[in-house]
Amino acid sequence: MTTWIMATRAQRLNPSTIREILKITERPGIISLAGGLPSADTFPVAAMQVATDRVLREQPREALQYAASEGYGPLREWVAADMAAQGLHVDASQVLITTGSQQGLDLVGKVLIDPGSRVAVESPTYLGALQAFAPYEAEFVAVQGDDEGPLPQALEAATGARFVYLLPNFQNPSGRCLSAARRVALAEKAAQLGLPVVEDNPYGDLWFDAPPPPPISATLGLQDGGGAIYLGSFSKVLAPGLRLGYVVAPKLLYPKLLQAKQAADLHTPGFNQRVVYEVIKDGFLRDHVPTIRALYKAQRDAMQTALATHFAGLNCRWKTPVGGMFFWVDLPAGLDATALLPQAVQAGMAYVPGAPFFTQGFAQGGRSNCLRLSFVTVSPDKINTGIAALAGVLRQNLTA
Amino acid sequence: MTTWIMATRAQRLNPSTIREILKITERPGIISLAGGLPSADTFPVAAMQVATDRVLREQPREALQYAASEGYGPLREWVAADMAAQGLHVDASQVLITTGSQQGLDLVGKVLIDPGSRVAVESPTYLGALQAFAPYEAEFVAVQGDDEGPLPQALEAATGARFVYLLPNFQNPSGRCLSAARRVALAEKAAQLGLPVVEDNPYGDLWFDAPPPPPISATLGLQDGGGAIYLGSFSKVLAPGLRLGYVVAPKLLYPKLLQAKQAADLHTPGFNQRVVYEVIKDGFLRDHVPTIRALYKAQRDAMQTALATHFAGLNCRWKTPVGGMFFWVDLPAGLDATALLPQAVQAGMAYVPGAPFFTQGFAQGGRSNCLRLSFVTVSPDKINTGIAALAGVLRQNLTA
Repeated sequence: MTTWIMATRAQRLNPSTIREILKITERPGIISLAGGLPSADTFPVAAMQVATDRVLREQPREALQYAASEGYGPLREWVAADMAAQGLHVDASQVLITTGSQQGLDLVGKVLIDPGSRVAVESPTYLGALQAFAPYEAEFVAVQGDDEGPLPQALEAATGARFVYLLPNFQNPSGRCLSAARRVALAEKAAQLGLPVVEDNPYGDLWFDAPPPPPISATLGLQDGGGAIYLGSFSKVLAPGLRLGYVVAPKLLYPKLLQAKQAADLHTPGFNQRVVYEVIKDGFLRDHVPTIRALYKAQRDAMQTALATHFAGLNCRWKTPVGGMFFWVDLPAGLDATALLPQAVQAGMAYVPGAPFFTQGFAQGGRSNCLRLSFVTVSPDKINTGIAALAGVLRQNLTA
Repeated sequence: MTTWIMATRAQRLNPSTIREILKITERPGIISLAGGLPSADTFPVAAMQVATDRVLREQPREALQYAASEGYGPLREWVAADMAAQGLHVDASQVLITTGSQQGLDLVGKVLIDPGSRVAVESPTYLGALQAFAPYEAEFVAVQGDDEGPLPQALEAATGARFVYLLPNFQNPSGRCLSAARRVALAEKAAQLGLPVVEDNPYGDLWFDAPPPPPISATLGLQDGGGAIYLGSFSKVLAPGLRLGYVVAPKLLYPKLLQAKQAADLHTPGFNQRVVYEVIKDGFLRDHVPTIRALYKAQRDAMQTALATHFAGLNCRWKTPVGGMFFWVDLPAGLDATALLPQAVQAGMAYVPGAPFFTQGFAQGGRSNCLRLSFVTVSPDKINTGIAALAGVLRQNLTA
């Protein structure tokens, strides 16, 4: 009888709660505000057709062959130039193209986390990052925050952690955007504590009225003397099905991240990298991203109106997001969003309960009276219907 | 001052010796027999054009959106059906699509290797597997072999290892193909010892005269009672730049591999999966793969002729490979292929030295008097010139 023995870290691998929830909510007829998907209406299909045609006509041998683990040179240059526009001055040699920014998180974990290493995270934080770091047997430290985001002085509790993971722009799940002052204060505190920052920015381009403040990495610097690693993605401005992201790291860390990348999948598909470069090289995103912003802003407005209308008197709290894809709603104490989900599905809508986004137990500030609502994939009409249905469920449980 | 502390496993990450060598040998004018790349002449560009066009016309929203971590359903069904044709009966639910089979190796390592776990490997073995397993802090056990491949009784030294990694078809680097009898004997010995087998088959379709014997997994079984995991790839029959491979695992292991996959990159690009499925679904490979076999066989013949001609009297040993991409040449004792490489490059050709493919020290059977020659990317004329140049270098060093 063959004996399969799993690694200890395999115990830290768990089914994604959200993916399990999504399976339940994908029944026909359910208005799902649960997804974390961008709207397929924004996918630049025509530009992709032109680009794939050109790549396969002009450079098929290169695009379909094995390629450098670092990524496609012109795309790395593009990323470096794009970051310069955000005030982040880096060399293309610091850019590592990854198979989605999820892979960037995995590589960061692989290179920086030992079993028992402390890793500081926002509370709530992005579930995919927890899933990436957990198998390396990290011990998570939740950084306490206020309405403005994580508190600089709360970083002191994370002293000695391998890094703090921050998502300053329109965070998944909270939708929160950190103010310029809070960013600088967090950067200064982290620098003072010698605490490295891993900054994740998948949503930064999806602002509605004004661009977000400069990244935390802009204060810390991405050079060897700096204290940050920066992650970006093409998933929200082009299409996630291409799986293209990037990590920008100090030169002293780059070689180990690169070697981890080689070991993980040799390189990100060169075909995809060349197609995306072909799409974006002449400024395509300058015209395209504003169309995404306009669409998402209109749907954000629809959800805001629906919440204001149907949630009146329900004693819920939310902050209108100024970018990104999500509303985060705090329910009155005593309501459990996880327990209520089946009722919501019964009523014809779905959301993601908030509890899985907290790493700490309820005694330490983890909560279940909260939920995430996506406004980007459902029409304003259905948003209204879905929010009305959710309000009905809450009302029933509040008065019960 | 920010303190970056690397994980212990990062010490096991190393630059790929071969990639470093390839950089040296990529000077213009050098005839490189060093590469491990398939021939770009075999890439099905026209079929790719038709398929990408169709996918972007008919299913752009699905192809460009986030997708299931398991992989694209019809592609998983195709893999299961293709394996049935090899005598491997599996359910599509056992198939996990990966970002190249390199990622399959990484996921297997992540789920099965603890620090200090023993992992048995052939001697020599595929370097990419060593790179994938090493960061999980595996201790490698080299399985002793003879001209026919690893010896069944030598598996006894690996008792208690987490698994033995085997590449039975036209192995990289040795070119060796295990006989049917050896496969069955290895499977039976592994089963008797309770030793799991990880079988890697990137080259199996590249046979020249007759298909290789059934996989070792066919004897062991890929069901829960069986003792094998099987890895396959589209890199050698279509194109490596798409990064598409797969892992087929017993159902009891599948959930953890899937969760590791989610954490690693969420999913393999859905666009690539749909394009490849579109290319292959109506039997394209039935006509396409024979053209690759014919090309590679002709180039194998050219190298065989060149070796027979120019290596006469040099006291070298090689076995003519019956498939795949590589010749493996044993040099007379005392010659060091690593030390000779600069002379070969000086003489206008390049190869890969054999030493990095051994995990054990020289005292334990590791050797440096051996080298790998690829015959697939260079024309017969240049193969002849390159082999003649190499013979000149060897002759000079034998008589010096």
